[in-house]
Amino acid sequence: MAEKITPRSQDFSQWYQDVVLQAKLADYSPVKGCMVIRPNGYAIWEQIQKDLDRRIKKTGVRNAYFPMLIPESFLKREAQHVEGFAPEVAVVTYAGGKELEEKLVIRPTSETIINSMFAKWIQSYRDLPLLINQWANVVRWEMRTRLFLRTTEFLWQEGHTCHATPEEAELETRQMLEVYTKFAEETLAIPVIPGRKSENEKFAGALSTYCIEAMMQDAKALQAGTSHNLSSNFAKAFDTQFLDKDGKQKHVHQTSWGVSTRLIGGMIMTHSDDKGLVLPPKLATTHVVIIPIMAKVETKDQVLAACEKVSQSILDDAGIQKLPYDTGIFIDKDEQKQPGWKFFEYELTGIPVRIEVGPRDLEKGQVVLTRRDEGKKEFIPLADVPARVSAILIDMQKSLLEKARAHRDANTHRTETYEEFKAQIDKVGGFHVSPWCQSRECEAQVKEETKATIRCLPLDADYQTIPEPGKCMACGAAGPNIRAIFARSY
Amino acid sequence: MAEKITPRSQDFSQWYQDVVLQAKLADYSPVKGCMVIRPNGYAIWEQIQKDLDRRIKKTGVRNAYFPMLIPESFLKREAQHVEGFAPEVAVVTYAGGKELEEKLVIRPTSETIINSMFAKWIQSYRDLPLLINQWANVVRWEMRTRLFLRTTEFLWQEGHTCHATPEEAELETRQMLEVYTKFAEETLAIPVIPGRKSENEKFAGALSTYCIEAMMQDAKALQAGTSHNLSSNFAKAFDTQFLDKDGKQKHVHQTSWGVSTRLIGGMIMTHSDDKGLVLPPKLATTHVVIIPIMAKVETKDQVLAACEKVSQSILDDAGIQKLPYDTGIFIDKDEQKQPGWKFFEYELTGIPVRIEVGPRDLEKGQVVLTRRDEGKKEFIPLADVPARVSAILIDMQKSLLEKARAHRDANTHRTETYEEFKAQIDKVGGFHVSPWCQSRECEAQVKEETKATIRCLPLDADYQTIPEPGKCMACGAAGPNIRAIFARSY
Repeated sequence: MAEKITPRSQDFSQWYQDVVLQAKLADYSPVKGCMVIRPNGYAIWEQIQKDLDRRIKKTGVRNAYFPMLIPESFLKREAQHVEGFAPEVAVVTYAGGKELEEKLVIRPTSETIINSMFAKWIQSYRDLPLLINQWANVVRWEMRTRLFLRTTEFLWQEGHTCHATPEEAELETRQMLEVYTKFAEETLAIPVIPGRKSENEKFAGALSTYCIEAMMQDAKALQAGTSHNLSSNFAKAFDTQFLDKDGKQKHVHQTSWGVSTRLIGGMIMTHSDDKGLVLPPKLATTHVVIIPIMAKVETKDQVLAACEKVSQSILDDAGIQKLPYDTGIFIDKDEQKQPGWKFFEYELTGIPVRIEVGPRDLEKGQVVLTRRDEGKKEFIPLADVPARVSAILIDMQKSLLEKARAHRDANTHRTETYEEFKAQIDKVGGFHVSPWCQSRECEAQVKEETKATIRCLPLDADYQTIPEPGKCMACGAAGPNIRAIFARSY
Repeated sequence: MAEKITPRSQDFSQWYQDVVLQAKLADYSPVKGCMVIRPNGYAIWEQIQKDLDRRIKKTGVRNAYFPMLIPESFLKREAQHVEGFAPEVAVVTYAGGKELEEKLVIRPTSETIINSMFAKWIQSYRDLPLLINQWANVVRWEMRTRLFLRTTEFLWQEGHTCHATPEEAELETRQMLEVYTKFAEETLAIPVIPGRKSENEKFAGALSTYCIEAMMQDAKALQAGTSHNLSSNFAKAFDTQFLDKDGKQKHVHQTSWGVSTRLIGGMIMTHSDDKGLVLPPKLATTHVVIIPIMAKVETKDQVLAACEKVSQSILDDAGIQKLPYDTGIFIDKDEQKQPGWKFFEYELTGIPVRIEVGPRDLEKGQVVLTRRDEGKKEFIPLADVPARVSAILIDMQKSLLEKARAHRDANTHRTETYEEFKAQIDKVGGFHVSPWCQSRECEAQVKEETKATIRCLPLDADYQTIPEPGKCMACGAAGPNIRAIFARSY
C-alpha cells in the first residue's frame, strides 16, 4: 500500500503536495525550481490544450512559434517591461563554445521578440487584425516554488494580437477574458471572477490587465489567467506601424493573454479530496475503470468476459457517444494486484467512475458502480450501466462546478471595515469585497499589514453595488470608491 | 503581385528559400540561427504532431515533460555524449540576477535529465517497460543554418524508453523506426529507406543508431528521423537500475528516438514545385479553396450562393466524411483581390484543390476544378463535385508518394567502383548503393574527397544483394563487404 495522504484539515499545503506526488502528476527535478510533469499530469495538460486551443482558434487566432531566446537589448526597449522581468530572467552568455557578443535571455514572455517580427510583417490596415498564439515553455526565476503553481519553467499559451484602434484592442482583451472564463467554468469546473487588476498588480508594460480569479478549498485566491491591453507600448518600442486607410502611419494597438500549467494546480486545489485527485470528466482520458473480481478460478473467465461486455456496451451507447469527448475505458486485469489496491489507486488518480464486476453480482445481473467525487456504491443492472455512466459523467462535470461555486460564495464576504477585515482574513480567509479609494497607498498598507492583495476589481455589477456611500476600507475616505476583492493568494 | 519564385532548375537552394518565405511558412528571426514558424508552417507542424502522436501512443508510449535546463555536470557523465554535444550547447550562467553555482545547459536532447528521473522512478521489473515521449524545443548551436532543415532552436519529439533486456530494447528501437517509416510514407508522402548508421554517424552515446533516409528533388539525401539503441550506457552513468525477477539489481536497457520540424523542410523539398508549396492532403488544414468570380454585379449574389452550396455539398458528402481528417473548405469572398491574385496565392500556399465558381459555368451547371499538383483545369458538373474532390484528395496523397518514390529510385544507383562514384556524385548526385569494407578509414576518405557520407546501411535485403563478391568501393578490399548508401546530404 502506498503512503497516506495528509488530510486537508490537518495541513492543506502538505495535502496538495501529497496528492501531486502520489497521484504521479508531477515530481521535483534536480534543477532548482523546475518540475517534471509525469504522464498522469501531462495527460491533463493535453486535455486542457485540446479544449482551449479549439476555443482560441474559434475566435480567428492562429498558432505560430517564436524563438525562445531573446536578445537582452529587446527586453530593455519597454521601460516597465524590463523593470518587471529583468530580475527574473535566465541568461545565456555562452553558446557553441564561445562567449556571446550579445547575451540572450530565455523568454519570460514573448511580447518583445514577437513585436520584432510584427514590425516586419505588418504594412497596412489590410494586415490587421493580426491574431497569433503560441504554446511554449517560459522561464521566470522564482525563489519559492510549488509544483504546478509556481515553477521556474512552466508551459503556457501566450496570445499576441495587433489591431488598428484602441477600441478593437480593448474588445479583444475582454473577449479573451471571456474565453478564459468560459473555459475555466465549462471545462475545468472552476468558477472564476473576471475583473481588472489594480495598477500595482498589472502586467509590466500593459495599459491594463484583466484576470480571472478562483478560490481554492482553503479559501485562498488563485489567479487563473490574464488578458492584457498593451495599448501601443510595445508597438512604440519596436516601431510596429501600419499605413491606415487615411494614409497615415500609426502604431498598432496590442493585446496579450495567457494561461499556464498552473491551471492544473488550481484544478487540483479546487476539486480533490483526502483520497486523492478528483478530475472533472472533461479533463480525464480514462473515464471508467472496470475491475474484475477474480478471486475464484472457476468464475474468472466469466467475470472477464462480462467486463469486456460492459466496456463494449458503454462504448456503443448513443448517450456516451454524444459526450463532447472520447470516453476512455480501462479494464484492469492485473492479477498481481488485489481489488482493494486497485480501488485505492484509481481513487488516488481520479478516475471518475469505477465499476466492479464480481461473480455474485453477475448472478444477480448487476455490477457495483462508484462515482469518484461522491464515493457511494450503487448496484446497477447490467443493461442500465451505459445510461448510468453517461448520466454520472454529465452530472459530475456540472456538480463539481456547483460545489466549488457554493464554496466560493460561502467564503465571499462584503467586508466594510478594516477591523472586520483583519479579523476575518486571519480567521477564515476568503474573498472580501470591500470599498477601496483606488490609492496605491491603501493597497500597499493592506498588503503589508495583512498579506492580502487586491485580486481584482470585479467586472460583474453585482459585486460593485455599494448600498451606502462606502468608505475606503483602509483609509476611511468617503470619496468615489469602488469595490475590490481582497484576499490572500497563491 | 508578390515576388517570383526562383525555378528549381536555376537554383534549388534559392527556390527552397523562396517557397518557405513567400508561402509564409517561416521567417528569419533577429536571433542568429533561430527561425520563426509562421501560422502557415505551424499548421503543418500541428498536423504532423496530431498524426504522429496518435501512432506513438498506439504503441503504449505516454507523453510527459522534463525541464529544459540541464545541470552541466549531467552532460559529462556519459563520455561519448558530452564529446558529441558539448560544442553545441547554449549555457545559462546567470539567473535571477545572480551567477549560478552550477551552469545549466539548454537541452540539446534529454537523455541525461530524463535518466536522472528514471533512476528515481524505477525500482523493479514491474516498472518496466517504461515508455515516455515528450514534445519539446531543443537548442543546438549551429554554424550554418537553413529554415526548417537546420536551426539553432527546433521543435521535436523525443521518445525515451527503458527495458529489462537488451532484446526488448532492440525491438523497441526497430519498432519506432517502423513507426517513423510508415508515418513518413503514409502521411508526409515521403518514401524513406530505413537503415543503420555507421559507427561514425551514430548518436553520441548510443550502441547503434537507425534512421530513415529520404531523397530530395535535387537528389540529395535528408535524414528524416532516428531511433537509437542506447544499451545501458546512460543507465550506467545515472545508475538507472531495477530489481529483476531473479532478485538481482540490473541496469535498464534504453532507447531514444526523435523527429523534428526538419520534416517540414523535407516535405517541401520532396513535393513542392516552381509555383510554390505542394502539400499532401493529410498535412493540409484547408483542403479546398472556392473562388467566386464576382466581376458582374448582377450575378454576384447567385455566384456566392452557389459557392456556399458547393461547400456544403462537399462537407455533407459521405465519401468526404470517410477521409481520415476533417476536410477544411474556405470560400475566399474578398472583393479587394482579383481571382488571378487568388489563384497565385493558393498555388503558392499549397491548397490541394481549387474550385472556381463563375456565372457562365453556373449556367452550364458546372464549376472549374484544379488539382494543385497536376495543375490541369477540369469542368465538373455541380452534382459530381464532392465525389471528384474526395477522389482527388485520396489520389493526390497516393500519387505524391509514388512520384517521389519513382524519382528516388531513378536516382539510386548500384555503383561498384570509386571512379564511377566520383563521376556520378558530381554529375547527378543521387544515392549510391555501394560495397563497403566497414572501415572508418574508407568512410572518412570518401567523405573528405567527395563530400558524400554513408547515409545508412539499408535494412531491406534488396539493397544488400551483392551479386558478385563485391570489392569495397574505396579501398578495393574483397573482404566481407556490405552495401552502404553513399550520398551528399542536407
